[in-house]
Amino acid sequence: MNLIIDVGNTLSKVAVFQQDELIERFTVEKPDLSKKIEKIFSRHPDLDGVIISKVSQAEFSLPQNLQKKMPIINLDAGTRLPFENLYATPQTLGADRKALVAAAVKEYPGKSVLVIDAGTCITYDFKNEKDQYLGGAISPGLKMRFKALNSFTANLPLVEAREEAELIGDSTLTSIRSGVVKGILKEIDGVIEEYKEKYPELVTIITGGDAQFLSINLKNSIFANSNFLLEGLNHILEFNISR
Amino acid sequence: MNLIIDVGNTLSKVAVFQQDELIERFTVEKPDLSKKIEKIFSRHPDLDGVIISKVSQAEFSLPQNLQKKMPIINLDAGTRLPFENLYATPQTLGADRKALVAAAVKEYPGKSVLVIDAGTCITYDFKNEKDQYLGGAISPGLKMRFKALNSFTANLPLVEAREEAELIGDSTLTSIRSGVVKGILKEIDGVIEEYKEKYPELVTIITGGDAQFLSINLKNSIFANSNFLLEGLNHILEFNISR
Repeated sequence: MNLIIDVGNTLSKVAVFQQDELIERFTVEKPDLSKKIEKIFSRHPDLDGVIISKVSQAEFSLPQNLQKKMPIINLDAGTRLPFENLYATPQTLGADRKALVAAAVKEYPGKSVLVIDAGTCITYDFKNEKDQYLGGAISPGLKMRFKALNSFTANLPLVEAREEAELIGDSTLTSIRSGVVKGILKEIDGVIEEYKEKYPELVTIITGGDAQFLSINLKNSIFANSNFLLEGLNHILEFNISR
Repeated sequence: MNLIIDVGNTLSKVAVFQQDELIERFTVEKPDLSKKIEKIFSRHPDLDGVIISKVSQAEFSLPQNLQKKMPIINLDAGTRLPFENLYATPQTLGADRKALVAAAVKEYPGKSVLVIDAGTCITYDFKNEKDQYLGGAISPGLKMRFKALNSFTANLPLVEAREEAELIGDSTLTSIRSGVVKGILKEIDGVIEEYKEKYPELVTIITGGDAQFLSINLKNSIFANSNFLLEGLNHILEFNISR
């Protein structure tokens, strides 16, 4: 059994895997993280390993007895990865993006895969048929776009709604919703199409908090998998324990 | 001769038109606005009218003698517009968007026109063949997206460069540039294509600070016109003076 700790920009996720299978999954706010980990550990004292991935700073502690008993992988620039990393600046590649590529390699070995993570940011990550990671893109996520329009202008309100959008908004609210929601859909569809021109056999995965909402409105049929990042972290952990 | 004052989110523009022709145009920072207006007025004491458009609050004063001599239009919810406004909430329609639609009506009467203004925000505004304004969309502009990625995450740097982007970025910098620049291009191309499905004869105009840079990289051929908003304000002014 493996414990996966993913510290995100806004929320953290904690999960337990039995080999490749996700057994438990919790989303917690930063102040509750240490407590949640302690609880999980008291239920599963037979853990084989722990992996910790951080995209933001968070102070939390692992239980003392946990630290002694099993391998703990802090996913960083030194961690061995189950794919060839052709990123020009591998030391700056975010832990979340490493995890997504690891999942793509695990689930779709030998295929061209584009992983789109629609969370705080929208990240695009591509690995080719040789299981080499080439890189991708980072753009603002749904909520971030709404927030930016409000924060960085004098007159626009904060729109929160994650709802389907009309092409032609006829009020400030519906105009913003159209610009943000339609804009993201057009962006994702357009990016997928450009990849498909180069890699016709491309498999596209969408994950992250807005994946479900976005995937039903995309032109391109893609697979939504909300646990893709956690599966990737589990794969990196297994890869490092078993080698 | 007409004086046009356009107070934007970051910079203000001041322009002089002789009927439909732009004679002079200046971009100034807010503190310098009053002085610039006074200078222009001393060079052109024969002004026929003034129009003032504000998307943000700015304190500036018109010269005393200017105020007495000619019509001054403060573009607001009460200003008569040279098109039929079918916006559901016309009182919330931004002055800049009114000006863009006025320019579309002036330049392309009887045609379906989509005006894209790529500035602080990217605004999309559509008027149909009956010269009716239906609405559009608002999404974050180029600079705003770069700024949001930096401000609203813990680890991403501020990218400033307005440069062409690769599909696959292989560093944090090039990933962000790909996400933002490619993202906007895909968004704009996708939105234009959806409009064209409904309005095959669509004319598309792109204006605003990032228009030139974006237009050369768009799939759809569209007209870039950097003075479109000013032309629209001039048209609104003429329409109100001459009626």
